[in-house]
Amino acid sequence: MRLPIGFRVGAIKAGIKPSGRLDLGLILSGRPAAWAFVATTSRAAAPSVRRGRELYAAETPLQAVVVNAGNANCATGPRGQEDDRRMARAVAARYGLPEHAVLTASTGVIGVRLPVERIEQAVPTLQPGFDLLPFAEAILTTDTRTKTAEATLPGGARVVGVAKGSGMIHPNMATMLAYLLTDAELPQEELRQTWPSVVDRTFNQISVDGDTSTNDMAVLLANGGAGPVDPEEFWPAVERVARDLARQIARDGEGATRLITVRVQGAATPQEARNAARAVASSALWKAAVYGNDPNWGRVLGALGYSGATFDPLRVRITLQGVPLYDGEPLPFDSRMTSQAMRREEVVVEVDLREGPAEAEAWGCDLTEGYVRINAEYTT
Amino acid sequence: MRLPIGFRVGAIKAGIKPSGRLDLGLILSGRPAAWAFVATTSRAAAPSVRRGRELYAAETPLQAVVVNAGNANCATGPRGQEDDRRMARAVAARYGLPEHAVLTASTGVIGVRLPVERIEQAVPTLQPGFDLLPFAEAILTTDTRTKTAEATLPGGARVVGVAKGSGMIHPNMATMLAYLLTDAELPQEELRQTWPSVVDRTFNQISVDGDTSTNDMAVLLANGGAGPVDPEEFWPAVERVARDLARQIARDGEGATRLITVRVQGAATPQEARNAARAVASSALWKAAVYGNDPNWGRVLGALGYSGATFDPLRVRITLQGVPLYDGEPLPFDSRMTSQAMRREEVVVEVDLREGPAEAEAWGCDLTEGYVRINAEYTT
Repeated sequence: MRLPIGFRVGAIKAGIKPSGRLDLGLILSGRPAAWAFVATTSRAAAPSVRRGRELYAAETPLQAVVVNAGNANCATGPRGQEDDRRMARAVAARYGLPEHAVLTASTGVIGVRLPVERIEQAVPTLQPGFDLLPFAEAILTTDTRTKTAEATLPGGARVVGVAKGSGMIHPNMATMLAYLLTDAELPQEELRQTWPSVVDRTFNQISVDGDTSTNDMAVLLANGGAGPVDPEEFWPAVERVARDLARQIARDGEGATRLITVRVQGAATPQEARNAARAVASSALWKAAVYGNDPNWGRVLGALGYSGATFDPLRVRITLQGVPLYDGEPLPFDSRMTSQAMRREEVVVEVDLREGPAEAEAWGCDLTEGYVRINAEYTT
Repeated sequence: MRLPIGFRVGAIKAGIKPSGRLDLGLILSGRPAAWAFVATTSRAAAPSVRRGRELYAAETPLQAVVVNAGNANCATGPRGQEDDRRMARAVAARYGLPEHAVLTASTGVIGVRLPVERIEQAVPTLQPGFDLLPFAEAILTTDTRTKTAEATLPGGARVVGVAKGSGMIHPNMATMLAYLLTDAELPQEELRQTWPSVVDRTFNQISVDGDTSTNDMAVLLANGGAGPVDPEEFWPAVERVARDLARQIARDGEGATRLITVRVQGAATPQEARNAARAVASSALWKAAVYGNDPNWGRVLGALGYSGATFDPLRVRITLQGVPLYDGEPLPFDSRMTSQAMRREEVVVEVDLREGPAEAEAWGCDLTEGYVRINAEYTT
């Protein structure tokens, strides 16, 4: 996957993950990059998120992002803030950058002090290059696969994305890190104005278990190396990459065996469409039904019912894998064949609320015994 | 369990549950009873809930409640509304009551037509008496035990409660039915004013899986048979009974092996206290950790973070089974002994937000492989 002009990435084993795998990743931009940033809304946000917010408010450009996986450096007291700054300083010193040009991120266990000395030792030996894969691996925690996506604009500018997800993925940025790099040239102001709405339609529409994390962020970096672009070409490309990553994250939820895609149309407002789609994608009951290949559409209706979206149960329509199941009242359907149709990599639920013009998608995964096993023994 | 004066209850096998168990329950009051009613906020509320709301708005007294389990009669189209009325009419005809004096309730599978003819046939043969247990059994679905509780006021008036719960229990009345019967005499107006706040602190503070159901209600019936009472004695007794039932419901969540109790103090407002306690009791990650006896307090902090409650992570305090784990920063603790201390019927998390004077409790259960198994194959 060819990186956008001017970017280099790298990764190294710093000794943070007990497994001994790659656990420290670095993104570098040869020139200062404009950036846009959406982060967790949690009150218990980690020092890296708090620091990111401060940098963002200062409106200075970025030249590096350093990410460690294995330790979230969250709920680590005042010490955690200092450790987070030391992580930034190590990169700034190595590459002769101002400290405020380095964004930090951490993911992993909460409440254990970050072994920042290991990061300080590792940074000088890290060799950034043009292969995204080691970085994509280094930022993983309980993920089972790397997540990357790309798009090329007609003029040649590139958008390359890399993300990690797995457990706790939920609207408002759960344990999720996503970085989209582009050599397109756009005003910082436009990036900041549009990126949050892209995130609302993509990363904030995925759910693994309903928990929202303390460390998450979705960042778009544009260093301008390929010159100006047409925003009408640029933003759809960015959204395609973000949507692709979001789907990969949902599919790789802890213990998941299936991707659940929920498409809602006919909602009164875009917000209601998003809420309705997300409620279905997040419903523990529906997620368990998908795991069991059970076409129990009553659980879809139940989730729509508490989603806050306006609709009349006597008018709503529900389709599963293309099979109409409910249209104001239960429709006759072959439950064995429908159950059979659910045995696919992707299970698609389509809902028409018949209230208005708005539509949205959301993604989730099935709830499995594997999820419970993974999460019943994490720290001990 | 001695019923309050003037109440009779009964149950019969109407042939709705495939298991052939008791599935139709009836509560009768010899005299018209004042009542208070809180029901699901779902937009896909079942006909029984919609009808209950209409009766409630009419402010006429109740003399009977008829409940079937096995079929929620929800999402059954216009036909479902008619079937629900027929259920009420059968009871009204049998006991010579006005139709509007009969409240209906249904619980079970969604989207399958209610076999109301079986109910019509069963009602005349149902023999109400003074044993609450058959009724308590008849209203169960995936519950594993009956749920009853009682209190006696100093003057002799009684409060007797019966409930069903299990899957989908969540704030705002998930698949939960609760009936509190009392012979105390209170103005209808006072009942209606105070009952919702009792429900907010009890039944709305339990969570099994985060889904909210289409059929739930919590009803308080006061027939006045024992004469007037002191409200200052009456309401605490009602709350004790409601709290006792709420805890039983949480403990008996689908697949649950443990009751999780969360006590929050130091919140800025009662609403924030309730939200914070409920967020922890509902967290899939924390629930899975409890199942695995993993004292992973980071997940408690994570849940507090997205609960919407105001707090400073550098000041909050978290205690688990009496062991202080976090106090603005991680505390040293013996994780093996703490894990051992979690191997109890009840796991208690105490949180001090140190923001204000408000406190609240919430209850949940652990998330187990059994939950997934139960819910992966329900209809098929």
